Amino acid sequence: MVDTKTIAEKIMSTKSGIDAHAGQIVEAEIDYVMANDVTAPIAFREFEALGREPVRDKIVLIPDHFVPNKDIASAEQAAEMRRFVKKYNLKNYFEVGRGGVCHQVMVDEGFAAPGRLIVGADSHTCTYGGLNAFSTGIGSTEAAACFAEGRLWFKVPESIKVKVNGKFKEYVSGKDLILKIISDIGVDGANYKAFEFCGDLQNVSISDRLAVSNMAIEAGGKAGIFPCDKLTEDFLKGRVRGEYTPVAPDADATYCRELEYNLDDLDYMVAFPHLPENGKNARDVVVTIDQAFLGSCTNGRIEDLRVAAKIIKGKKIHPDVRMIVVPASTEIYNQAMDEGLLKIFSEAGAFVSGPTCAACLGGHMGVLAAGEKCVSSTNRNFIGRMGDKDSEVYLAGPAVVAASALTGKISVP
Amino acid sequence: MVDTKTIAEKIMSTKSGIDAHAGQIVEAEIDYVMANDVTAPIAFREFEALGREPVRDKIVLIPDHFVPNKDIASAEQAAEMRRFVKKYNLKNYFEVGRGGVCHQVMVDEGFAAPGRLIVGADSHTCTYGGLNAFSTGIGSTEAAACFAEGRLWFKVPESIKVKVNGKFKEYVSGKDLILKIISDIGVDGANYKAFEFCGDLQNVSISDRLAVSNMAIEAGGKAGIFPCDKLTEDFLKGRVRGEYTPVAPDADATYCRELEYNLDDLDYMVAFPHLPENGKNARDVVVTIDQAFLGSCTNGRIEDLRVAAKIIKGKKIHPDVRMIVVPASTEIYNQAMDEGLLKIFSEAGAFVSGPTCAACLGGHMGVLAAGEKCVSSTNRNFIGRMGDKDSEVYLAGPAVVAASALTGKISVP
Repeated sequence: MVDTKTIAEKIMSTKSGIDAHAGQIVEAEIDYVMANDVTAPIAFREFEALGREPVRDKIVLIPDHFVPNKDIASAEQAAEMRRFVKKYNLKNYFEVGRGGVCHQVMVDEGFAAPGRLIVGADSHTCTYGGLNAFSTGIGSTEAAACFAEGRLWFKVPESIKVKVNGKFKEYVSGKDLILKIISDIGVDGANYKAFEFCGDLQNVSISDRLAVSNMAIEAGGKAGIFPCDKLTEDFLKGRVRGEYTPVAPDADATYCRELEYNLDDLDYMVAFPHLPENGKNARDVVVTIDQAFLGSCTNGRIEDLRVAAKIIKGKKIHPDVRMIVVPASTEIYNQAMDEGLLKIFSEAGAFVSGPTCAACLGGHMGVLAAGEKCVSSTNRNFIGRMGDKDSEVYLAGPAVVAASALTGKISVP
Repeated sequence: MVDTKTIAEKIMSTKSGIDAHAGQIVEAEIDYVMANDVTAPIAFREFEALGREPVRDKIVLIPDHFVPNKDIASAEQAAEMRRFVKKYNLKNYFEVGRGGVCHQVMVDEGFAAPGRLIVGADSHTCTYGGLNAFSTGIGSTEAAACFAEGRLWFKVPESIKVKVNGKFKEYVSGKDLILKIISDIGVDGANYKAFEFCGDLQNVSISDRLAVSNMAIEAGGKAGIFPCDKLTEDFLKGRVRGEYTPVAPDADATYCRELEYNLDDLDYMVAFPHLPENGKNARDVVVTIDQAFLGSCTNGRIEDLRVAAKIIKGKKIHPDVRMIVVPASTEIYNQAMDEGLLKIFSEAGAFVSGPTCAACLGGHMGVLAAGEKCVSSTNRNFIGRMGDKDSEVYLAGPAVVAASALTGKISVP
C-alpha cells in the first residue's frame, strides 16, 4: 500500500500522531471544542460528573440558538452557560450582542483555520472545512469528554473528491452548488465520508466555500474540506488565532468516489420540502410564499447580504410576505450597517434582527404556522424545521430568497 | 351646577352627543379600535359570532407582541390576523417589518390625534393622551363589539389635574416624572380616573408626553391627557390622518384631585420590583444587573435612543450585562440607523433588534432566568413580567438604562 493521503487522513494523522488511513479508529488531539446554548448545558452536567479540570483554552462557548432568550427555559440554559464560564474562568465566550451564530463566530474570531481539528456540539460544525480545517459535529456528552481531555476518538473517514471547474454565473452561489451536489447524491450520499474539494477554486469565494462545507452534513458527510489557497490566506490575515498549517492532499490519494461540477452550467437551485436532496431548478417551480428568511450559518454572511440587498434595493417586499434578515454575527451586522445594506432591507419592509439563529431551526423570530411556506437561505427543510409540521421550507441561495421576497413566489433575480 | 368640563368630559360629550360629566355612562362613537396579535384573535372569534360587517376604516390591526413569530402558537395567532385582514379587506394592517409596537405605530401613522376617542385591546392604549386624545385600553370582546358597531359605552371618568412647572434637567425625562407621580399616588391612585396635564408643558416634548400618558394605566388611570399646543401641532404635521379638533379644558372644570410637580426638582427615578409605585431616586440604590432593556411603547422612541446613544457612544457594555435595544417602530428604526445610533449600540456590544414588544412583557428577545435582574425602559415590573417569577425588573428612563448597561449596576449618567 502506497502511503498517500487525503486531507482528512493527513489531519487525522497529525492530530493522532499515528499514520492514519480511512477506516481506522484514532484518538486525536482537538484544537477547539465548541458548544452553543442548547448543547452546552448537557455537556456541562456530564463534564461536572467527571470531576475534572477543563482544558480551558480549547473550549469555545457561544449562545446563539435561542438568544436573546425566547422564554424562561432558554433563559435558564443561557444562565447555566454564564455560570460555567464564570466558574472555570473561560475566555472564549461570546455574549449576546458580541457574537452571533456559533459557526460564524468561530470563523470571524479566527478559531477556524487550516489543518486544525475542531469539534462542536452542533451538526453544522463542518462549516470550517471551507477554511481547510477538519471540523465536525459531535454530541453533548462527547463535548463533555473533550472539555476534560482535549481529545476525542474518530473513525478516519473515506473521502469523496469533488472537482469544480468554471465560474459561477452572477448571483449563483456556493449554496446552489451544494444543493446540486446533495440532489445528485442524496441526503445519505456521503454518510460518514469527507468531501474534499479541488479544481478551479479561485472562482469560489471563502463565503461560498463556507456555505458548501456547512451543508456537507446534509448529505451525511463528516466533513467538507477545501484546500488552503491565496483566498484562504488573505481571509485569515489579521483574524486567525495562533499559527496554522495548511494541508494539501497527496496527488494519488485514494477517494471512494469522484464527482465533477462545471460552475458555468450551474443554475439557481431550490430544495423542496422536506429534504435538502429535493433540489430543482428555481426557474422551473411555481410556489407562493408567506415568508423569506435570509440568515444563518449557511448564508448570513456579508456576501449573502450584499447580493440580496442589490436585488432588493429601491424595491418593496411583497405585501403578503414577511422578510426576515438576520446577519450571522455582530461583525457582519456592523459591516452590513456600514455598507447601507440593513437600511436597504428595512426600507424595503423587511424585519432586520441582530445576529442569532432565529427561525432557521424554528426557534424564534419567524416560526411558521400550519400551511405557511418559507423560502429560506438556511440548511434544513425537514418536516416542522421552522415551525408547524404542516409548514414548508424551500432552501435556496440569497439571490432566490431576495427575488422571491419581492414577487411573493419563488423567483430568480 | 355650572357646565364646565375637563378634557375627558369634553371628548366624551362630543363623541356621545350628550352633555356628559364624570360618573355618567355614555355610548360614544370611537375614531379607531386597535388590536394586536395577542388580543385580536379573541376579538375576531367574538366578532364572527355577531354575524356583522366590520366598520372597516376604524379597525387598526398591528402584530407586535410575539412577532416575528416566537413559536407555533404565536405563528397561528399572526396567521389568524392576516386571514381576518384579507377576508374583510382591511386597510389598516401593519405587517412585521412595516410597523412595530402597536402604540408607536398608532402615533407614527397618524391615527392618534387631538380630540379623538381611540380604544385598543391593550392596556397601554392610553399612550395617545400625549397627543390630546382620549384613548384607553379595552378587552378583546369589547374590541369585537367595536369592530361591529364603531361605538362603545364608557363611564365618564373624573380627572386628576397634574400641574407641571419648570424644566427637566439634562437626561431626566417624562419617564422619571410618571414614575414619581405613581410613587406618590400608588398603583391604584388614579383608578378609573383621567390624568389631565397642564402647566409649563412647552418644556415637555411629545416623546416625554407619550411616555407619561403611556403609564397612566400603571396608576390605574383610564387616560392621561395632555393639551394640544404648538409642539403637538408641529408633531402632527404631515403625519396625521384626516382632520382633528384640539380640546382644552374649561378654566373652572372640576377635578377630583390636584397634583403639582416642579421638573427642576425631579431626579432620576427607578421603580423597584414588583410594582411601578416602588420608585426611588436612582442615585441612592445599589443593584447589580444582568440585563438592560431599551425599547417598548414607553421608551423606544428616537429621543430615547438618542439619549442612550449619547451616554454609550464610544464605550462598551459591561461584560456581565446583555443590553437589548429595540426601536419601537420601523420609522424609528430607520431614523436611528440614519443617525448612527444603532451603530453606536451595536459597536458597544448591545444586541439591536427590529421593532417588536420583545422582552417587555416577557414574550421573547430577552426573557429573564430565575434570579436575574433587568433595568428596563418599559412600563411594568410585576412578578414574572419579563420571565421567571424569581427575576426582577427595575423600571427607569433611557438614561439610567444606558448608564447601568455600562457599569453593570443601576447607575445615573
